[in-house]
Amino acid sequence: MSKTFDFYFDLGSGASYLAWRRLADLEAQTGARAVQKPMLLGGVFKATGNASPMAVPAKGVYVGRDLARFAARHAIALQTNPHFPINTLVLMRAVTALLDTDHYAPFVTHAFNAIWRDARNLNDPAEAAAMIKGAGLDPVALLAEADTPAVKDRLKATTQEAIDRGVFGAPTFFVGDEMWFGQDRMDWVAEALKR
Amino acid sequence: MSKTFDFYFDLGSGASYLAWRRLADLEAQTGARAVQKPMLLGGVFKATGNASPMAVPAKGVYVGRDLARFAARHAIALQTNPHFPINTLVLMRAVTALLDTDHYAPFVTHAFNAIWRDARNLNDPAEAAAMIKGAGLDPVALLAEADTPAVKDRLKATTQEAIDRGVFGAPTFFVGDEMWFGQDRMDWVAEALKR
Repeated sequence: MSKTFDFYFDLGSGASYLAWRRLADLEAQTGARAVQKPMLLGGVFKATGNASPMAVPAKGVYVGRDLARFAARHAIALQTNPHFPINTLVLMRAVTALLDTDHYAPFVTHAFNAIWRDARNLNDPAEAAAMIKGAGLDPVALLAEADTPAVKDRLKATTQEAIDRGVFGAPTFFVGDEMWFGQDRMDWVAEALKR
Repeated sequence: MSKTFDFYFDLGSGASYLAWRRLADLEAQTGARAVQKPMLLGGVFKATGNASPMAVPAKGVYVGRDLARFAARHAIALQTNPHFPINTLVLMRAVTALLDTDHYAPFVTHAFNAIWRDARNLNDPAEAAAMIKGAGLDPVALLAEADTPAVKDRLKATTQEAIDRGVFGAPTFFVGDEMWFGQDRMDWVAEALKR
């Protein structure tokens, strides 16, 4: 049985984007497979009393700078999105709808890039539909599936599972029951997976 | 002229304690000298709208775990202080009173160890006096000096300077105008100092 680790994320989180872009490297480096856990960060914030770092202006400025530094270190294109925050409810339902399909990883990459590399305004339904189309999928069909009770419930369940395990932000990693928060803890995750 | 970096901290911050314990290594590794900036973290929180991570229970649990991991990695003794949070106003005034004296560094080490290694309750004036005595200083004389307008104003000025420079938490480092927040960014500070 091969090793796994859990990866909780939300498309609206810039730190999740950096983690996503480095996920394949982490898997290759450790021989472990990421178990995908798309969650709704807004739901996590609401349940835990946490908030986006952007809620504290001085922290928001710094976190932007910090992400840019890590992006440069890992040669990942990153742009400040002037449309932040993006309401990711529908997008995360779409991601959830694609779990266990071959479209999942390419779609997540495409959506992350749209927000964090290309600074697109996915709050605008037309832009969101164009993004889905750009990923080679049918926006009408995907959004219809994203709106089904099964998909909504699955996203809710993953979000609740995260909250129950102590998650308060994104991205969050688990190796067994050991939790690490943040793209800046991926070296710790790698170390744990190599033990 | 030798290189310097600014080190803003508060005794009540566990992350500041870890940074303090690694400060001499950072100086030795880079040949740069830390400019000491004792500040009042409570004042920074009030001005910026930031709060202790402990204000969000799930985050508080994780941050405790995170600090313990870094403490273990760097072989630093760290204990959860059941008397947290410690009101550090008087202590930080005492630290400020000792700036530019030979007593400064030994006292800061002693006070940090009392809180974060020995889990002492420095909210209790008797315990605080015993701690000062244990550092080889006269509690009555030091606390009298800590209560002078010159010392109070100097702590206020350092705190305001921190806020004006974008500080929102502790510890915070500056190399020139470049800022890093957190004991987990000391590798970045070292890298900047070596450039």
